[in-house]
Amino acid sequence: MSGQTFDVVVIGAGPVGEVAAERAARGGLKVALVEHERFGGECSYWACIPSKALLRPGNLLAAAKRVPGVPVGDRVDPAAVFARRDWFTGKGDDSGQVDWARGAGIEPIRGHGEITGEREVTVGGDRVLTARHAVIVCTGSVPSTPPIPGLDTIRPWGSREATSASSVPGRLGVLGGGVVGVEMAQAFASLGSEVHLVISGPRPLPRNASFAGDLVLAGLREAGVQVHTDSGVSAVAAGDSGTTLTLKDGSTLVVDEFLVATGRRPATAGLERFGIEPGQPLETDDTGRVSAVDGGWLFAAGDVTGRAPLTHQGKYGARAAGDTVAALAAGTFSEASPWSRFTATADHHAVPQVVFTDPEVAAVGLADARPGSADRVVDIDIAVAGSSLHADGYTGKARMVVDTERNVLLGVTFVGQDVSELLHSATIAIVGEVPLDRLWHAVPSFPTISEVWLRLLEAYGL
Amino acid sequence: MSGQTFDVVVIGAGPVGEVAAERAARGGLKVALVEHERFGGECSYWACIPSKALLRPGNLLAAAKRVPGVPVGDRVDPAAVFARRDWFTGKGDDSGQVDWARGAGIEPIRGHGEITGEREVTVGGDRVLTARHAVIVCTGSVPSTPPIPGLDTIRPWGSREATSASSVPGRLGVLGGGVVGVEMAQAFASLGSEVHLVISGPRPLPRNASFAGDLVLAGLREAGVQVHTDSGVSAVAAGDSGTTLTLKDGSTLVVDEFLVATGRRPATAGLERFGIEPGQPLETDDTGRVSAVDGGWLFAAGDVTGRAPLTHQGKYGARAAGDTVAALAAGTFSEASPWSRFTATADHHAVPQVVFTDPEVAAVGLADARPGSADRVVDIDIAVAGSSLHADGYTGKARMVVDTERNVLLGVTFVGQDVSELLHSATIAIVGEVPLDRLWHAVPSFPTISEVWLRLLEAYGL
Repeated sequence: MSGQTFDVVVIGAGPVGEVAAERAARGGLKVALVEHERFGGECSYWACIPSKALLRPGNLLAAAKRVPGVPVGDRVDPAAVFARRDWFTGKGDDSGQVDWARGAGIEPIRGHGEITGEREVTVGGDRVLTARHAVIVCTGSVPSTPPIPGLDTIRPWGSREATSASSVPGRLGVLGGGVVGVEMAQAFASLGSEVHLVISGPRPLPRNASFAGDLVLAGLREAGVQVHTDSGVSAVAAGDSGTTLTLKDGSTLVVDEFLVATGRRPATAGLERFGIEPGQPLETDDTGRVSAVDGGWLFAAGDVTGRAPLTHQGKYGARAAGDTVAALAAGTFSEASPWSRFTATADHHAVPQVVFTDPEVAAVGLADARPGSADRVVDIDIAVAGSSLHADGYTGKARMVVDTERNVLLGVTFVGQDVSELLHSATIAIVGEVPLDRLWHAVPSFPTISEVWLRLLEAYGL
Repeated sequence: MSGQTFDVVVIGAGPVGEVAAERAARGGLKVALVEHERFGGECSYWACIPSKALLRPGNLLAAAKRVPGVPVGDRVDPAAVFARRDWFTGKGDDSGQVDWARGAGIEPIRGHGEITGEREVTVGGDRVLTARHAVIVCTGSVPSTPPIPGLDTIRPWGSREATSASSVPGRLGVLGGGVVGVEMAQAFASLGSEVHLVISGPRPLPRNASFAGDLVLAGLREAGVQVHTDSGVSAVAAGDSGTTLTLKDGSTLVVDEFLVATGRRPATAGLERFGIEPGQPLETDDTGRVSAVDGGWLFAAGDVTGRAPLTHQGKYGARAAGDTVAALAAGTFSEASPWSRFTATADHHAVPQVVFTDPEVAAVGLADARPGSADRVVDIDIAVAGSSLHADGYTGKARMVVDTERNVLLGVTFVGQDVSELLHSATIAIVGEVPLDRLWHAVPSFPTISEVWLRLLEAYGL
């Protein structure tokens, strides 16, 4: 056994752990960053980054086809798309991330870190790291696999295998109508696969406004995806000519690869001694402090907390946690009031998310009115000069949810081609609690798609 | 002579006049809308709409070329681009706009309207319209032509001829580094012209942050435009093989068409009786009331006021003026306090503008710190995961100007491919006076280009 003492030990070097470590180090603390796979984490190699690299060419080609006069071919070139994706993921080489950590004054430590006691992390079973001030758990999440008979007889794809694929399956089955399911269905359809998407409800993206799922469903079908709604996979069987999926209604599909995208659960294995069952979230207060553990030394951020399982929101929580730990160590911690730099207050009000399908879904805050409230929902088509000029046949919808008592926005949803960059306007309006009659004075530039803001406010009655 | 009485007479049926008339009619007033050219105005037929229709295909093709795997040809098809532009402008048929006016309860009147007395507009010299409550002047602006020797011997293009062209000049000269000059240089370069852009300074877009002009200059050159900086056209001569332009340094260019894009002036002819010289702005207070005319019956909005010569900002002023006139008539007018629905307050703080070149320039508020102030300027490169994924070799810059005393934003500039839809986030932040430490909680979705907001705030020290 060897031992070493740090101010802070961060477990998990995905984007969230990197940011937590960076903020603590910036606060003058000696920080260790422990990672058992690759520095940079799931997002960099197997999630956000490669998925968007696979989606962008197909979405851009679809956009180009909608503007007459732009000379385009029929399909993207998969080899070029995969090569570009590999450039972004570095084929898994994390040396750049390790160098970044060192440059930020953080000590990168490779190995599996386990919390073996109060303020104590053991790496690889024999290297004991003591944390003077805090341990910050940023271990993320792991795929949650459903118990489908026969699934264990094949080697199904998870999101990792999908985002790192280097060939295009002739026939791809996808189970799950969440973000991973629809994004990968879209990407592989654009790459030339015959894609079967099996979802449990009448439309994908059940957590979004229903028109979002409806428009994405229509977009997937237009892209050639065969969507099996109100369905499920009840059995899987390997065979010589492919994998046979038996759907809920008894019909069968034969596919070459089968992507299971049915969700993720917090990666909390090894915390039983603190009363945290594997797969259960490590719940925290808004500063990132783990509520169930005494002594105030255990923090967490990102997917593992179950707060808002998105890279950007996890990094936000990591900034709050890193700053809190640094300020506590320096004795400069002030009250953790809402909207202070020590609190991830926006987790409760304004969590933005973009689904990079065609059309895109960009949503923040509430998707609908609160039951029993005086909230008002305004729905309109995105049909302004900017959208018409952007693409022939532009189809999109926008919603805002208004707290009529406080006269502020609670949620905004945009669905349509290239709406992703509109979202931050809504996030600022919600977080800034800008009253609607002040938003009236924020004039959208003509002719942009953002003019939909004017139409939303006019439809509200301004 | 025939006579007719209305509550309100609006002169000029461009987007600004249409909105002023619509808001007044919505307030229950009987409204006449007088237009001597086409209902829909400059913007619809000869400015914003056709210019963006000419730019979008070329910009989209350039975007597609930057993502390997997207199969594209070399050049846009001019015939298809012109046909699509014609679809947007309806080849000048304004019957749809006239029908819209009637549907909105507005009486459209064709002819040249002149103010011939207090509350009196004479159309076509013999039809007298009396306005019980107000006349609203929305006559826009006209091109300002510089006195260049020989210019009168050719038929130069103005913005109208450029945006309505149906063939591609082999060689196009463009004079002027403002928005029209750079946008049309970009558009015709993408259509295949050999373009010579002659500008007076070292870079185009002198009213923007200097990096905006520098990046647009680089983009134009990359697109094949030959930019002649610190120059001007001192003489023009017609000839058999084209028009010869003599530049400031004595060198010459021969071109097939010559676009003069040296600015516009308010269309105020015919108002001498009120002390307004032709070409001078019709100055108003924030409700749109013309300051120089007694009696409170004369209003104006849009380019003619000289406030902020942009379609969207003119429509904003028209909403304030239309609502003011309607409320005055109904006796419900309240104090015209800043940021009320009766005041175009944002004209002083947050006028957004997008230049649809490649790269785009999207700016709102101040371009730089106020002299002698404690304002702080933060400049960063746009280099986030979202921009890298968006286009290989993405190049862009962002600036925010901070009022350090009030801890709010005064201005934001984004320059880069497809930044136009980021702008409204900045407009809301400025208009909403959202403090910087609250903006910290507006988390940009990963991986979007909007993540540049996080980098700006980090660079500021948050």
